[in-house]
Amino acid sequence: MPAPTVHLSVPEDDLFGSHNLPYGVYSLPGQGPRVGTRFGDHVIDLGALLHDDTFARPSLNEFMAQGHERWVEIRAAIRSALAAEVPQEAVHPLADVTLHLPFEVADYVDFYASEHHAANLGRLFRPDAPQPLMPNWKHLPVGYHGRSASVVVSGTDIVRPFGQRKAPSDPAPVFGPSVRLDIEAELGFVVGTGNPLGRPIDVERAEEHIFGVVLFNDWSARDIQAWEYVPLGPNLGKSFASTVSPWVVPLLALREAKIATPRQDPPVLPYLALEEPWGLDIDLEVEWNGQVVTRPPYAAMYWSPAQMLAHLTVNGAPTRTGDLFASGTISGPDKEQRGAFIELTWGGTEPVTVGGVPRTFLEDGDEVVLRASAPGPGRTRLGFGEARGRILPARDVKES
Amino acid sequence: MPAPTVHLSVPEDDLFGSHNLPYGVYSLPGQGPRVGTRFGDHVIDLGALLHDDTFARPSLNEFMAQGHERWVEIRAAIRSALAAEVPQEAVHPLADVTLHLPFEVADYVDFYASEHHAANLGRLFRPDAPQPLMPNWKHLPVGYHGRSASVVVSGTDIVRPFGQRKAPSDPAPVFGPSVRLDIEAELGFVVGTGNPLGRPIDVERAEEHIFGVVLFNDWSARDIQAWEYVPLGPNLGKSFASTVSPWVVPLLALREAKIATPRQDPPVLPYLALEEPWGLDIDLEVEWNGQVVTRPPYAAMYWSPAQMLAHLTVNGAPTRTGDLFASGTISGPDKEQRGAFIELTWGGTEPVTVGGVPRTFLEDGDEVVLRASAPGPGRTRLGFGEARGRILPARDVKES
Repeated sequence: MPAPTVHLSVPEDDLFGSHNLPYGVYSLPGQGPRVGTRFGDHVIDLGALLHDDTFARPSLNEFMAQGHERWVEIRAAIRSALAAEVPQEAVHPLADVTLHLPFEVADYVDFYASEHHAANLGRLFRPDAPQPLMPNWKHLPVGYHGRSASVVVSGTDIVRPFGQRKAPSDPAPVFGPSVRLDIEAELGFVVGTGNPLGRPIDVERAEEHIFGVVLFNDWSARDIQAWEYVPLGPNLGKSFASTVSPWVVPLLALREAKIATPRQDPPVLPYLALEEPWGLDIDLEVEWNGQVVTRPPYAAMYWSPAQMLAHLTVNGAPTRTGDLFASGTISGPDKEQRGAFIELTWGGTEPVTVGGVPRTFLEDGDEVVLRASAPGPGRTRLGFGEARGRILPARDVKES
Repeated sequence: MPAPTVHLSVPEDDLFGSHNLPYGVYSLPGQGPRVGTRFGDHVIDLGALLHDDTFARPSLNEFMAQGHERWVEIRAAIRSALAAEVPQEAVHPLADVTLHLPFEVADYVDFYASEHHAANLGRLFRPDAPQPLMPNWKHLPVGYHGRSASVVVSGTDIVRPFGQRKAPSDPAPVFGPSVRLDIEAELGFVVGTGNPLGRPIDVERAEEHIFGVVLFNDWSARDIQAWEYVPLGPNLGKSFASTVSPWVVPLLALREAKIATPRQDPPVLPYLALEEPWGLDIDLEVEWNGQVVTRPPYAAMYWSPAQMLAHLTVNGAPTRTGDLFASGTISGPDKEQRGAFIELTWGGTEPVTVGGVPRTFLEDGDEVVLRASAPGPGRTRLGFGEARGRILPARDVKES
């Protein structure tokens, strides 16, 4: 008896049609995690669909390491397979599965690629400085390494972190739960294949190394960060958690989303200069307790992902399968386009109304969801799923 | 016929006697890497010595993950086995083996725990600041995340990195090979067992999580670092390479090296307060082209490894087997105790004489070797092996 099959179809205006086909890792109750794609409201098991054991794995790393040509090939194979009869055993309703962190994070770097964000933060953190941007900002994509182990998948609760803070008026630092807990709405770029030590990635070839894109919420304890960050940068103010969406949208799906970045002036050094500079026309939204409070436009980002990766490796530093680099907060020129609450509420001095109440930073029980969409072929759009997290009260529970 | 055995003995004054027994990963020509210990001038295969497959592995991670009790047990088992007849197949002359990176590096953090170093760098990088130390420095061990993929084993050549630099007098940044290439003589601490998300490590229990200690040279391109590091900290100025010694000296071997840290004033917050503060009486030396130019004393470090690990996790951030945290440059109060050439030569203005020639930063062909020793039981001392690297000329070879 042949295995039962089904015919799947998805409306053209679905954010997860055959123009998207993001990769993720799912599990069914009592079974181990495996690689799948999302098609409409179904998860399709890629091992079962393509009869390929690369996908019978708990992470995308093995597949990503196979390289750009194989990514192209598999994407085409998934499309043909989905257009035909699909084995029923490969198809699961989205509601029946648990989604997991889709890849093992190797090194993680966070950039600072929005001019609007960097200038806003400069004004807020260094009000007496003559210029809001540091002198280096337009010459290189500024970034720093973060903690890979703290990257969690959407839906993971975020426990309010303890830490040191010191207001200018405090005589000494205070230890306690953060009182200025914030978000940063970002995109993260997943490196599929890296470069060996000493062999930088050319900016024109960076695209072949980038496997895909995730939503990224870089939760930030502003009070901890402000006290600790000189002179070596953020550490504990960020390292407690960063949330990624469970679906990695392939860069191959984002051809129609490519647009020029804003003009870079002064001109960048040759190693950062792209023949045709490209940004991504991805619209984000940030929902705070069910209400959209800001809509950050990725199109406004000054530095492109290709420039970030070229810069990261120009000194010979190696990258690996599973490396994650994030854009930094995405903020547009308008107030309702700012991707962090510290900017949106101007350091807490201009509350926004959420559920009828004036709010500044995150309170226990708050839930934040990032979403995004981008243009696909024709009149289609494609979705990124969501990066969701709820704030739990601080707890001081030592490991033993 | 019984397998042939040998009786090994090592003079009492050997740095690698039975009081040391560091762990490393070695290979013989044509064979895969395995875990061994060093005993005198021999490498002892631990899989063959103890009949335990945990050690038939290319890294220490599996063994480290088994936890503190098992580390105690295995150390005792190695000692008894080495006191008896040893299977000949387990014994290899050091000269016959290749030594490898001994563990897979998970997250890597570099601290800044020497008051003398932080104050010297403050004076050099921020000459106009009223105080050389930042206001936070005595309240928390300042640190930042670095690139795990760039951690290499002793003997790996260091290619001079390309990067951006801008002297105050330059109208725009310049791109080229670093002209201020430097070292940082440090110790690195290897996390054997970590903590789950949300469960900080108590400072009094940190010791049970730390598996061992390595030499660590955090190669630094000062010109790249000075231009890039505001406001998010060092990145490309450090990420091209960090060298570790191939032998991990167990913390269990360093009981006699424990000493009080310098008095911490102002008193630290309770989460950083140890009942009995402990530092490590480890003497380093830095050899530059065969000549010892400085002898940094680890005993002078302000922050202890236990405080660093407690601080890293106090916000709930998880650590994992293979996490590496380094001390930051070790500098003592005297000039000949400074662990970085930028300090030793005061920003290049006070050259030191190496091989009869006045020198400031590293030139192509230079070789730097870190070594260290610490007191063991009775009149013994134990060694850390070496962290060696030679500078190769910059090369601009893109990956393709």
